Amino acid sequence: MSPQTPREARKGFPTKADVMAQTPDPAVRQMLVRMEQLGIETAFDRFDAQKAHCGFGLDGTCCRICNMGPCKVTARSPRGVCGADADLIVARNILRWVAAGVASHGARGREVMLTLKAAAEGRVALPIRGEAKARAIARAFGIDDPVKSLPELAGEIADLLLEDLSRSVPGAHRTLQALAPPERQAIWKALDILPISAYHEVFEALHRTGTGTDGDWENVMRQLLRCGLAFAWSSVLGSSIAMDILYGPPRRDRIAANLGALDPDTVNIAIHGHSPVLPMAIVAAADDPELRALASARGATGIRFYGICCSGLSSLYRHGGVSPLANAIGAELVLGTGALDLWIADVQDVYPGIMDVARCFHTRVVTTSDSCRLPGATHIGFDHHHANLAEVHELARRIVRMGIDQFPQRRAANVFVPRQVMEAEIGFSVESITESFDGLPNLLAALADGRVRGIVNLVGCNNPKVLYEKTLCEVADALLAADCLILTNGCASFPLLKLGYCTETALERTGPGLRALLGERGLPPVWHMGECLDNARASGLFRALADLAGQPIKAMPFAFASPEWSNEKGVGAALGFRLLGVPSYHCVPAPIGGSAAVSRFFHETTQDALGAAMVVERDPQRLAQRIIDDLSRAERR
Amino acid sequence: MSPQTPREARKGFPTKADVMAQTPDPAVRQMLVRMEQLGIETAFDRFDAQKAHCGFGLDGTCCRICNMGPCKVTARSPRGVCGADADLIVARNILRWVAAGVASHGARGREVMLTLKAAAEGRVALPIRGEAKARAIARAFGIDDPVKSLPELAGEIADLLLEDLSRSVPGAHRTLQALAPPERQAIWKALDILPISAYHEVFEALHRTGTGTDGDWENVMRQLLRCGLAFAWSSVLGSSIAMDILYGPPRRDRIAANLGALDPDTVNIAIHGHSPVLPMAIVAAADDPELRALASARGATGIRFYGICCSGLSSLYRHGGVSPLANAIGAELVLGTGALDLWIADVQDVYPGIMDVARCFHTRVVTTSDSCRLPGATHIGFDHHHANLAEVHELARRIVRMGIDQFPQRRAANVFVPRQVMEAEIGFSVESITESFDGLPNLLAALADGRVRGIVNLVGCNNPKVLYEKTLCEVADALLAADCLILTNGCASFPLLKLGYCTETALERTGPGLRALLGERGLPPVWHMGECLDNARASGLFRALADLAGQPIKAMPFAFASPEWSNEKGVGAALGFRLLGVPSYHCVPAPIGGSAAVSRFFHETTQDALGAAMVVERDPQRLAQRIIDDLSRAERR
Repeated sequence: MSPQTPREARKGFPTKADVMAQTPDPAVRQMLVRMEQLGIETAFDRFDAQKAHCGFGLDGTCCRICNMGPCKVTARSPRGVCGADADLIVARNILRWVAAGVASHGARGREVMLTLKAAAEGRVALPIRGEAKARAIARAFGIDDPVKSLPELAGEIADLLLEDLSRSVPGAHRTLQALAPPERQAIWKALDILPISAYHEVFEALHRTGTGTDGDWENVMRQLLRCGLAFAWSSVLGSSIAMDILYGPPRRDRIAANLGALDPDTVNIAIHGHSPVLPMAIVAAADDPELRALASARGATGIRFYGICCSGLSSLYRHGGVSPLANAIGAELVLGTGALDLWIADVQDVYPGIMDVARCFHTRVVTTSDSCRLPGATHIGFDHHHANLAEVHELARRIVRMGIDQFPQRRAANVFVPRQVMEAEIGFSVESITESFDGLPNLLAALADGRVRGIVNLVGCNNPKVLYEKTLCEVADALLAADCLILTNGCASFPLLKLGYCTETALERTGPGLRALLGERGLPPVWHMGECLDNARASGLFRALADLAGQPIKAMPFAFASPEWSNEKGVGAALGFRLLGVPSYHCVPAPIGGSAAVSRFFHETTQDALGAAMVVERDPQRLAQRIIDDLSRAERR
Repeated sequence: MSPQTPREARKGFPTKADVMAQTPDPAVRQMLVRMEQLGIETAFDRFDAQKAHCGFGLDGTCCRICNMGPCKVTARSPRGVCGADADLIVARNILRWVAAGVASHGARGREVMLTLKAAAEGRVALPIRGEAKARAIARAFGIDDPVKSLPELAGEIADLLLEDLSRSVPGAHRTLQALAPPERQAIWKALDILPISAYHEVFEALHRTGTGTDGDWENVMRQLLRCGLAFAWSSVLGSSIAMDILYGPPRRDRIAANLGALDPDTVNIAIHGHSPVLPMAIVAAADDPELRALASARGATGIRFYGICCSGLSSLYRHGGVSPLANAIGAELVLGTGALDLWIADVQDVYPGIMDVARCFHTRVVTTSDSCRLPGATHIGFDHHHANLAEVHELARRIVRMGIDQFPQRRAANVFVPRQVMEAEIGFSVESITESFDGLPNLLAALADGRVRGIVNLVGCNNPKVLYEKTLCEVADALLAADCLILTNGCASFPLLKLGYCTETALERTGPGLRALLGERGLPPVWHMGECLDNARASGLFRALADLAGQPIKAMPFAFASPEWSNEKGVGAALGFRLLGVPSYHCVPAPIGGSAAVSRFFHETTQDALGAAMVVERDPQRLAQRIIDDLSRAERR
């Protein structure tokens, strides 16, 4: 599909019936049948009801940034009331998406930065577990000093990350300056896209896209690139640094995924969302003997946690004892099992539709962030000013207790749990990979001699515009068969976890190069790196390998793919990798098709400027082939 | 019109023909005819071409915040794919508007704050003219010290304002804390809507409205109120403080407005936009004898400046020598005179449509902000990092020189200037009003005994959804006849300036109370307070009178009206006054009609919580009557 023709693309959106017939996970198929039998609506029903989609929205040519409109671009009305043409309207709309993505990842990053600062200053009783990370980052920032205690260092780093998040007075973005490849910094400076701070670039993006401010789509795109850098270096990397220092490094583990992991005899608590501070405390709180005893008194054999999208993954690889069940769009199906006693929702990708499903069962929903409430849910969380941050453990205990109290309400007759369960390896990081290969040079050698054709960071959320989880799995299958190593995280990683891609047995699906290389090390061909912010680990691995090869990242056989992406953060994630020189690949187009100029910018122009462009192919096989072809063309050393 | 029925409201949008027949300024009517004769398109043509408007957009029930959509609320699809219903979709959309408004006013405020800081630190050669304001603000902030020099104080205040603009670590918003009425602070605290900073609340607004974050429309509204406070106390008041300290207080003056003020023999330069730093330097630069001599050498008798929307007004009341010609939507008509040699555009309400008009004449367009470029314009301005702020005077001189060089290109045959010109009083401020009345108690007494029925801040931009400038003038006429005193600024003030409302002769149009009170003091019945940020002066006057009366603002006969409003800032402006307890009145509804709950929140609920709600009446006569009725009901002391 040509990216300039989204009108054509949208003709082929799948139906719920298509999903029920073709989605690869049998547990998902069974749950869709079950939900239909119970007469409970899911996102797939609502997607069908939304057809046909508005062409102006799909193309990005509807403007609603002032009250003179809404304006739309047609042959009869090629400009909005203010005179904005399709290029400008499309550019402004997509910039606002990217800005919102910076804000989303940034907001959860900020919570961890504030928590790290509070822990460092003794205002919250949380241990700082990542001393090695803190020392390494302090060295990069030039603030290391062996005399400084870990809390001192951690506090200074938190302040610095918060400053990069929110600076209003022009000055260098210190995280970017300290940690981005010099080759890239020179390119970004020449393009005049160095960000001041995440807060600032978001603020400026909204300012610039207001009525009668930026009238030049190319200048709007410059701000989009600035936001992309703010996204990558504050909202993602800054957040990741704060998490690693506060919670320590990921740990490699072997876990059980999918609905079959639901234990019928335990208090079952789902963790859903993206902001790790309270979820980490909740998972830890359940170790409390008093709460365990209470669960036992209520008739349960224990307390178990289940992960929905990123909060689950985050707790999983840092604390353990969490079974990943579903990505955001599958959350309703998990609730439909009737086996969850408590559902803890924090922020992002918590579809409000979950409340209607929870109401059909005994499952109680608790919201934990001031940024997210759900009508009908109980709210126990941090306030807008984080004034009650120090109460984190007490809040966590109250929440777990609520799950225990709910357990006796569960009715076995209402419970329907598909049996599918799958072992999966998790917790990959640059550090663990280095260890597994006795040093990265051995991995680089495999890239150089073709045993590994390339490395693809296969991530992103889901979108009913393409076949749920099938699209992603088809891309994965083709990549593995062509000896492409896969990194994954977040929503996209769920089908890979659930369907056996994250175990050594999946080496059956790879070409001979990967099989030989990984088989002897007992590694799976898909490396699970965590939640969506762990894109920072993928880019860290790319950077480390490129440095080792003495090459810029853009010359290396690396790719970013989010075949099923749907949310605003997804635009920023792909953009962040393109800014590094890693091309991005998608089966769903962004709403930019209404502007040939903006489409060209995304799909072509940035190839010259950054060494990476956005590629969209609706068909997953064709997308995978395009990735493989591009990786094969990448320079090798 | 009931605010819940925008579908009905939109049936009656006027046509360009209606505007040509009915808009009250003869110069506007003549220019519309002239433009039609020349075959040049205006915003009114484009508005006609946009009909019929999309009902989902008008109602706020189209959701485009993720790529699973666009989703729309219909009987068949009452929820988006994620499960968001009409209440949530409408709430999220309007919050994003308010956030964008905070960012717009805040961005231009930041530029002045950065300039004030640079001036204080000796990094830019600009005098700090507002010592009295600096001392008063320092006292309010508790940082005054007679030992501190003016630059020291100004620098500290700039830092404090910038901190309130961008704080990420929770803490008190110091401007609000120091300057907001204690009665209001208690209400806002009880509502949990105290803002952390403008940057933060904007960032959080985007986060909260992302896919699957806030699922509760009421919680979204809480963030809307927080953004409203950030708008009022950082984006508006913080900016106003910085401007008053840097540029000194407004000065009362009598000036000439409307197109007839265009001098056919001078170099004619239009200033269009909202960010005062460079415009102020440009107007000052033209005093340079060298440039005057150059103008003379090019055959001009001088250099004159003309104001389009707020940059013009801002320079006008602080420097003088600027004739206000048109608001944003009238800018194309000004260009259509062919009498402008240079058109300087900075940010906000600079419709990209102006370029097509400028191309028909010799007029050169210069953009001066990194936030705003226009294809085809020359760009001379500050960069994204304000690294060239110190070059402000050199940039200004280059720009003026460009206007002079353009003068010989003007062709008399292409020039068409309507003769309308009007004297107007400008430069009203709390200080000047106090002086005019020998103390505010005399004005308060007139309010108490009914000579003044109430005070209405009549402002806002324009919108082709109602009859251009006629709507506003009808409201003004009715208010004056009922002895309501009018404050005005920004775009709405142009018809009042042009059509004689800002001179003493307009007392003919008032009731006997105003006529007697103002006649003896030689004051007009409409007090022009400046650019749109000068809403801060109106709220300052409201506060001062209420304090004097020993009453909360909500008990006083005050109103905010923006009958023709259209841009995102306009939502914030009205909201800022409602948060103070001053109701807001409009002839154009916000796109919230698709949610009964959100409509109720705007139109009813906040009456109890804040003492002020939003009133929408499409008919200007009915709107004015409603204002008059409400003012008459307000408590009087």
